[in-house]
Amino acid sequence: MNKKKEMSQTSNLKIIPLGGLEQIGMNITAFEYEDSIVVVDCGLSFPADDMLGIDLVIPDITYLLENSSKVKGFVFTHGHEDHIGALPYILKQINVPIYATRLTMALIENKLKEHNLTGKIKKKVVKFGQSINLGAFRIEFIKTNHSIVDAAALAIHSPAGVVVHTGDFKVDYTPVYGDVIDLQRFAEIGKKGVLALMCDSTNAERPGFSASERTLGKTFDSIFGQHTNTRIIIATFASNVDRVQQIINSAYKFGRKVVVEGRSMVNVIETASSIGCLNIPDNTLINVEQLKNYPEEKTVIITTGSQGESMAALSRMAFNMHRKITIGSKDTIIFSSSPIPGNEKAVTRVINELTRKGAEVIFQDAHVSGHACQEEIKLIYSLVKPQYAIPVHGEYKHLKAQSRLAVDLGVEKENVFIISVGDILELNKEKAKVTGKAQAGPILVDGLGVGDVGNIVLRDRQHLAEDGIMIVVMALDEASGYLASGPDIVSRGFVYVRESDELMDEARMILYNKVNECMDRGITDWGKLKMAIKECLSDYVWKKTKRRPMILPIILEV
Amino acid sequence: MNKKKEMSQTSNLKIIPLGGLEQIGMNITAFEYEDSIVVVDCGLSFPADDMLGIDLVIPDITYLLENSSKVKGFVFTHGHEDHIGALPYILKQINVPIYATRLTMALIENKLKEHNLTGKIKKKVVKFGQSINLGAFRIEFIKTNHSIVDAAALAIHSPAGVVVHTGDFKVDYTPVYGDVIDLQRFAEIGKKGVLALMCDSTNAERPGFSASERTLGKTFDSIFGQHTNTRIIIATFASNVDRVQQIINSAYKFGRKVVVEGRSMVNVIETASSIGCLNIPDNTLINVEQLKNYPEEKTVIITTGSQGESMAALSRMAFNMHRKITIGSKDTIIFSSSPIPGNEKAVTRVINELTRKGAEVIFQDAHVSGHACQEEIKLIYSLVKPQYAIPVHGEYKHLKAQSRLAVDLGVEKENVFIISVGDILELNKEKAKVTGKAQAGPILVDGLGVGDVGNIVLRDRQHLAEDGIMIVVMALDEASGYLASGPDIVSRGFVYVRESDELMDEARMILYNKVNECMDRGITDWGKLKMAIKECLSDYVWKKTKRRPMILPIILEV
Repeated sequence: MNKKKEMSQTSNLKIIPLGGLEQIGMNITAFEYEDSIVVVDCGLSFPADDMLGIDLVIPDITYLLENSSKVKGFVFTHGHEDHIGALPYILKQINVPIYATRLTMALIENKLKEHNLTGKIKKKVVKFGQSINLGAFRIEFIKTNHSIVDAAALAIHSPAGVVVHTGDFKVDYTPVYGDVIDLQRFAEIGKKGVLALMCDSTNAERPGFSASERTLGKTFDSIFGQHTNTRIIIATFASNVDRVQQIINSAYKFGRKVVVEGRSMVNVIETASSIGCLNIPDNTLINVEQLKNYPEEKTVIITTGSQGESMAALSRMAFNMHRKITIGSKDTIIFSSSPIPGNEKAVTRVINELTRKGAEVIFQDAHVSGHACQEEIKLIYSLVKPQYAIPVHGEYKHLKAQSRLAVDLGVEKENVFIISVGDILELNKEKAKVTGKAQAGPILVDGLGVGDVGNIVLRDRQHLAEDGIMIVVMALDEASGYLASGPDIVSRGFVYVRESDELMDEARMILYNKVNECMDRGITDWGKLKMAIKECLSDYVWKKTKRRPMILPIILEV
Repeated sequence: MNKKKEMSQTSNLKIIPLGGLEQIGMNITAFEYEDSIVVVDCGLSFPADDMLGIDLVIPDITYLLENSSKVKGFVFTHGHEDHIGALPYILKQINVPIYATRLTMALIENKLKEHNLTGKIKKKVVKFGQSINLGAFRIEFIKTNHSIVDAAALAIHSPAGVVVHTGDFKVDYTPVYGDVIDLQRFAEIGKKGVLALMCDSTNAERPGFSASERTLGKTFDSIFGQHTNTRIIIATFASNVDRVQQIINSAYKFGRKVVVEGRSMVNVIETASSIGCLNIPDNTLINVEQLKNYPEEKTVIITTGSQGESMAALSRMAFNMHRKITIGSKDTIIFSSSPIPGNEKAVTRVINELTRKGAEVIFQDAHVSGHACQEEIKLIYSLVKPQYAIPVHGEYKHLKAQSRLAVDLGVEKENVFIISVGDILELNKEKAKVTGKAQAGPILVDGLGVGDVGNIVLRDRQHLAEDGIMIVVMALDEASGYLASGPDIVSRGFVYVRESDELMDEARMILYNKVNECMDRGITDWGKLKMAIKECLSDYVWKKTKRRPMILPIILEV
C-alpha cells in the first residue's frame, strides 16, 4: 500500500487541528504521514451564547471523510467531555478503532452504550508506557496528572520525527491515585530528539506551580472539623474522581454517610469504582432516600452543579426544585471548583439563593487547577527540548503566553506556531510551514439534527429573540387578484396584543390600503407584493415603537 | 396639612425600596413620614440575560403615583447610571423637584436634555454640608469618596429619627479631586444618635481596606515609563473622572497627546471639565483625526469598552470595525477596570482579539474598587453606631456579609434587616418591622415601549430563540367550512427550509389529512381546530427532530 517516495524527497508530517485551540472544547487533531492518519481526541463543546437553542457542538470531520482510507484510528489523552464527547457522533460517520487508557475507555464505553454503538466499534485499552502501531505511526501513552484519573500524554512517533502532545496535564508530585507524571520518560524522549511539542496552555498566564490535588484532603478535613453541627454539601466536577475520593475519606474519618447526587456524578463514580480507581469503605455510601434516617450532621452530599448549571442537582436544591433535599440553616455548602469563564453569573445566582435559605456557603480555597502553570510548562519544555513549539488548549491569549515561555526557554521564535482550526501545518527537521487549509469548524447539534441549524437559522433565532415576529396573512382571489380575506396580523414576542390593540388595528388598516394600492397599480408579482408589505409595516412599527420585529408576509390563493 | 396624631401614638418612619438591593442596579428608595415622601436615587439597570431584546430596565413607581401628593422630591447620592439613569422616564410620570451635588446634577441635566425635559423640572444643586427641607424631612448631603466625583452620603432627618444612607462609597484618605470623606460629620451625627444605617454592601465580602484611587497615578507612570515605544490605549469607565485625570497627568508628564474615544466618555469629560473637576493642560487633548500627525509613541487613547461591550469603541477597534483606529503590534492596551460579574467572557473575547492583532494587553493592577471593603464598613458602623442596620447595594450574599459585620460590631441581631424590593419597613426607636408590601419591581423598556413587554412576550421570545417558529396558514370556505387553500407551512429559526424539504412536505400532507378529518367530524370551532393542528404538527416534529418549535396556526375565512 505504501507508495515509497525517492530517498531524496523526505515526506512531511502534517498536523491538522480540526477543533480545539482558541475554539474552546471540541479538541480533535489529525496527524498525517503519507497514507496514514491518526486522530488525537474527539471532544465536543458547549454552545456559545449566540448559538441559540443549540444543545452541543461537534467538529466538522470532512477532512477525515475525504481521506477516510488513511484514517487508522482515534487515540485519547483523557476522559473529559471536551476530549471524548463528540466520539459517538463521529463514529457514526467513520468507524475506526479507538485506543485509550482504562478510565478514559470506560467513560467512552458509557457513551457508546447511550448511542447504541456497543459492540460495533473496535477498541483497545492501552497501559501507560505501552505503544500502539497505527500505519506509519507509533503512539506511546505516557502517564501524566490531571483533574481526572488515567490522563495520558502521547508521543507520536513518525518517520518525520516525534511529536509530544501533553493533553491536558499538570505535574502532581503527590497524586491521590496512581503515579506522578512520568517525567523520566519525557526526558528520555527529549534526549533522543523531539520534532515538536504540543503543550497545554490553559494556565500559561499563571506564574508558579499548581498545587497538588492531595492538598485538598487537609482542606476538607479542616472544613469538616469546623462544621460538626451541620450537613455538608460539596459541589464539584463529576469527573474528578480524586476529589470525590478525598471527600469520601474525610466523610469516613468524621463518621458521616455519603450521598451522591446528579446523574453524571453517579455515572462517573460507578464507572471509577468498577475499575478500582475509587475506593469507598463499606457502609459509607447511602442513597438519597436514606438521608432522613441520619442526623444532618452525620451526612455529606456530593453533588453536580458547581458551575451553576440550571438543571444540575445543586441548582435544583437552591431553587426549591429538588424533590428530596431541602436547603436550610443546618447546611454548609462547599464549592470545590472555580467557575469556567462565562459561568460566573450563574454560580453567583446559586450562591445567593443558597445564602437566602440560611445556608453557609464556602466558595474559596477548596479547589486546585488540573492544568500546568508556568513553572510546570517550563519543566516540560526543559525535558522535551522540542525543535518546534505548537501551544494547544487555551484561548488565544493563553497560546500567546505559552509562545513567550517557549521563546524564553530557547525555542527559536520562528519555530513557534500558533495555528488555527483547519490549518495544515507541514513539518520536518528542516522546516515547518502552514501549507493549506482543511475544511473544519463547529457543527451544531439541535435535538436529533446534526448540522441542519446553520447561520441563517441562528440569525433568524437572534432576530426573533430580540424583537419577535409579526405575521401578515391574506388570501387573494385567483381570478380577480384582489383581496379575498385579510390582511390579518398575528404577532409573537413583539408586544402583548391586548396592550397594543390600537397599534394593530391601525397597522391592519394601513396594510389594507397598501395592498389595494398595489392591486390598483397592477402589481401581481407576489415577491414585489410581499416586499411592499414588509416595508410598509416595518416603517410604521419603527415610527411607533422604535423596534424592528421580523415581518413575515404569507399569501394564500383561493 | 399635617394631621397631628396624639402624643402617645408616635408616627413611624417608613423605608420602601422600590428597586436596588439584590436586584442589582435600579437603585431607588422611598422614605415616608406621615404626609411626606422623599425618594433617594432613581437608577436604571441593564437587562438580565433572560430579558431578550430589552434595552433597559426602570423601576415600577406605582407606590409613588398612588401617593403622589406626598412626594416632595428626589435626592441623589451620585451620578452613576444605576442611581440616576431612570430619572427622565420617572419624571414623565411624576414631576417633582430634584436635588443633587454639582457633577451629579450636571450629568442629570445631560439626561434631561436628551429627553427634552430641560426647563420643565425644578432642580437645585446642593453643596456638601448643606441641608434641604422636604416636608417632614431634612436631608443633609455629606461628602464621601467613590469612583465618581461629588458622591454624597445622605443624613435623612425625620421626627422619628435620623437615617444615614451611605450611597456607594469608599474611604479614600488621598482622593485625586476634592476632599476625603467627611468622617467627622458621620461621627457627630452618630454621637447624637442614629436610628438606622443603610450602608453599601458591594465589597462586604472583601477583607481589608480598598486602595486609594491615587495609587493608580504611580501605576500609570510606571506603565508609561516601561512602554515608551508604543501607543498606549487605556479602557476605563466613562464616569471615572479621577481615573481620566490621572491618565491625562501621566500622558502630560511623558509628553503624549490624548484622544478620548466613545460617546459616553466624551460626554462625561466635557461635563466634568465644564464644572472644573477635571483639569486638562492646554494642547494635550487632540481629536481622533489628528492622531495620524503624531508618532504612535507620543499618543494615548482613553476609551470606553472596558467591559467588552460589543458596540463600545474598544470592541470596535479589536474587531477591525473602528473607522479611525487600527490595532497592531505597536499598541499597549491597558484595562483600567475589572469585569462586572457576567461580563468576564465578553472582556476575554476582546482581549483575545487584541492579542491576535499583536498588541500587548495589560489586564491586571490598573484598577481599584470604588466600594468600601470590610474595614471601611466597620469604620462607618463605629462612627455612626446605628440602632438598626439595613444593608443596601449588593447581591444577597453581600447583604448577608454586611449583616454579619453589623452584628460583630454590636448591632442587635434582631435589629439587622435584609429587606426586599417592595418591603415597607416601619421603624421608630421602640421597634422596626416589615408591615406591608408596595407594588414594585422592574419595568422593561424596549425601544419606545415602556412596560409593554411583559412575561408573556419574554416567554415567547425565549421559545422563539430556542426552537424557532412554524406557522400553519389555511383558508376555509365560509359556506362549506372546508379548506379553500392550504394548509401551508412557513418556518423561521427552525431548520433552513431547503435542508428539510421532505420534512415540510410530509408535515403538510399530515396536516391536510388532519384538517379534513376534523371537517368530516363536524369540528367547526376554530379554537378546537387550531388545537388539533398544533398537537398534530408538534407530535410529528418532535418525533422527527426532538425539537419543539412554537406552532402558530392562522385561519382565514374566504
